[in-house]
Amino acid sequence: MTNLHKYFRAEIVSMPPYKPGEQPGAAKVIKLNTNESPYPPSTKVKDAIVQATERLERYPDPLGTSFRLAASKVLSTKAVSVSPDQILCGNGSDDILTILTRAFVGVGEVLRLPFPSYILYRTLAQLQGAAFEEIPFNAAFGLAPEFYVSHDKLKLVFLPNPNSPSGSVIPHDAILDLARSVDCPVVVDEAYVDFAPSNCIELIARDPRIMVTRTLSKSYALAGLRFGYLVAHESIIDVLRKVKDSYNTDAISIAGATAAITDQVWLRENVAKICATRARMTVELRAMGFDVRESHANFVWCTRNDRPVAPLYEQLKSRGILVRYMNYQPWGDGLRISVGTDAEIDATLLILKDLLKEPAK
Amino acid sequence: MTNLHKYFRAEIVSMPPYKPGEQPGAAKVIKLNTNESPYPPSTKVKDAIVQATERLERYPDPLGTSFRLAASKVLSTKAVSVSPDQILCGNGSDDILTILTRAFVGVGEVLRLPFPSYILYRTLAQLQGAAFEEIPFNAAFGLAPEFYVSHDKLKLVFLPNPNSPSGSVIPHDAILDLARSVDCPVVVDEAYVDFAPSNCIELIARDPRIMVTRTLSKSYALAGLRFGYLVAHESIIDVLRKVKDSYNTDAISIAGATAAITDQVWLRENVAKICATRARMTVELRAMGFDVRESHANFVWCTRNDRPVAPLYEQLKSRGILVRYMNYQPWGDGLRISVGTDAEIDATLLILKDLLKEPAK
Repeated sequence: MTNLHKYFRAEIVSMPPYKPGEQPGAAKVIKLNTNESPYPPSTKVKDAIVQATERLERYPDPLGTSFRLAASKVLSTKAVSVSPDQILCGNGSDDILTILTRAFVGVGEVLRLPFPSYILYRTLAQLQGAAFEEIPFNAAFGLAPEFYVSHDKLKLVFLPNPNSPSGSVIPHDAILDLARSVDCPVVVDEAYVDFAPSNCIELIARDPRIMVTRTLSKSYALAGLRFGYLVAHESIIDVLRKVKDSYNTDAISIAGATAAITDQVWLRENVAKICATRARMTVELRAMGFDVRESHANFVWCTRNDRPVAPLYEQLKSRGILVRYMNYQPWGDGLRISVGTDAEIDATLLILKDLLKEPAK
Repeated sequence: MTNLHKYFRAEIVSMPPYKPGEQPGAAKVIKLNTNESPYPPSTKVKDAIVQATERLERYPDPLGTSFRLAASKVLSTKAVSVSPDQILCGNGSDDILTILTRAFVGVGEVLRLPFPSYILYRTLAQLQGAAFEEIPFNAAFGLAPEFYVSHDKLKLVFLPNPNSPSGSVIPHDAILDLARSVDCPVVVDEAYVDFAPSNCIELIARDPRIMVTRTLSKSYALAGLRFGYLVAHESIIDVLRKVKDSYNTDAISIAGATAAITDQVWLRENVAKICATRARMTVELRAMGFDVRESHANFVWCTRNDRPVAPLYEQLKSRGILVRYMNYQPWGDGLRISVGTDAEIDATLLILKDLLKEPAK
């Protein structure tokens, strides 16, 4: 048998695979492990999808123009105007992150990310044959001084904001300082921003090295549709169009995403429900002895020093409740619990209370 | 204003963009320029899509298992068995081609392709900072001896089969010889294979360096859905899963593609209609003085020596008929005309007859 591995680029074979959160087939599981919306999307999405099935034999619009027009209206404010030419559509924001890494980071160059954050950033650097520089947050989940240091090999910075698993946010001033300190683009990954009090869109006009990525997977309840986008200076978008696959978003997802972003009334209601449940979870989990950070996302990050949390993850799982156990050494481990429906969270809290009555395993 | 272009990898800025065929917004155009199906997909696709809208708030299956199971059944014959673990799903076969290039071809290495063929292959090499080696077909659109030559830098071969724009096919023996001659994987791009008398799936078991890519954009009439797949040895698929985006195909396209490939009765009928029209087009275009190659795809390639064809393209366009004008110097230029409905082709042939009565411009 031929050794087929020898044909791959060396860095590919040695790479660890990125493992997405578990996706159980059974419907009875309470799924609080991948930060999906517990509520279904706006009903207008389904209507738009059904309509888009009428012309599936034709290629989609390569640039997702209907979405870009709708997003431009939603993103523009009195303070700042976002043109459709500042928007690049992607097959999920992972596609956007891939396009950005391929465009800016070459072999032997460096991609910077904070720690702990989104593991995928590492994978994207490795796929390019590039290095990643993982710089720990400071104790308050702020940017450490090392995060601002510039050097020749540094070609791109990813800054998830709000961050996972901490749910924390970096203020505007720090992001502007960062963009001025490093000599490369700074990508603010705003996957969770609709659950936070502010966003970084207005910073793009202040420093064109700042870009913002978004996804419809979380607040718009469309994880299954794969749609994300980038907002950046027009001249950056122009070049990135050469890097993306020609038809990277399909006719159905363009139609569904356009309907979703147009329905801002639905978005506000969905976000309000999730933020209300998040506040209640935070209070109750703290009352159970967890250290719970103030979250600006649709999950909470729960740690504790008095007993290990890994057994709690296992016990929850055995009772049909999936949360994410994450261990960021030397940072420490914890449970990242997505905000579910009130009934799902009630059940989870009840079981956790029971588990905590037992002595630690 | 900051010069933003300086931040990009040098090869990206200098790259020409890939231009997909025109996608006019107006419905009245007869669109014979991008090899779409003129007929809509199986009605079972729409039913499956509507059902898949019920759980869009959840992430899709990262591996498209329902599709892989269905495709495994369709692809397996008495002679050869294709397991679901030999199949990788993609966001169109362009996504598969991107994954393959990223996995096998590094900076300064070489990707081989025949000329004339699919322009995207060049772009994929350039995005990797790699070189492409474009080797002209021989006069009969067979593989030239240079195509079989091995060297250290050669890391991947793309062979579209049937090819565009020629509609020609390379026989199995030549492909097996090729895989034995070069020391790298050989990817047979079978985008158009359902319109041809045979395919290369059985070659994978004979030489695991041979892989086959497929798309649902052409014969299955799903260009708008973006779904393609790779069939290869399991150990290759394993590694490629690390290179693809985690959720590269969405819940809707997985459901639609699964329904489509399951409906083989529909496929056979659609292909039979298109092949019948293709035969008629070939005869009538030859009667008008075009040199028309025998096509094994859903288009015909028309050249002629007695007058230039570029003006015919422009005149057809001004009358609302879009075909593809392609100029492959020193190979020569021609019109690639997709097989449309019988009514669309009747209209096109009628106008062409009129145009040819006028003296050449």
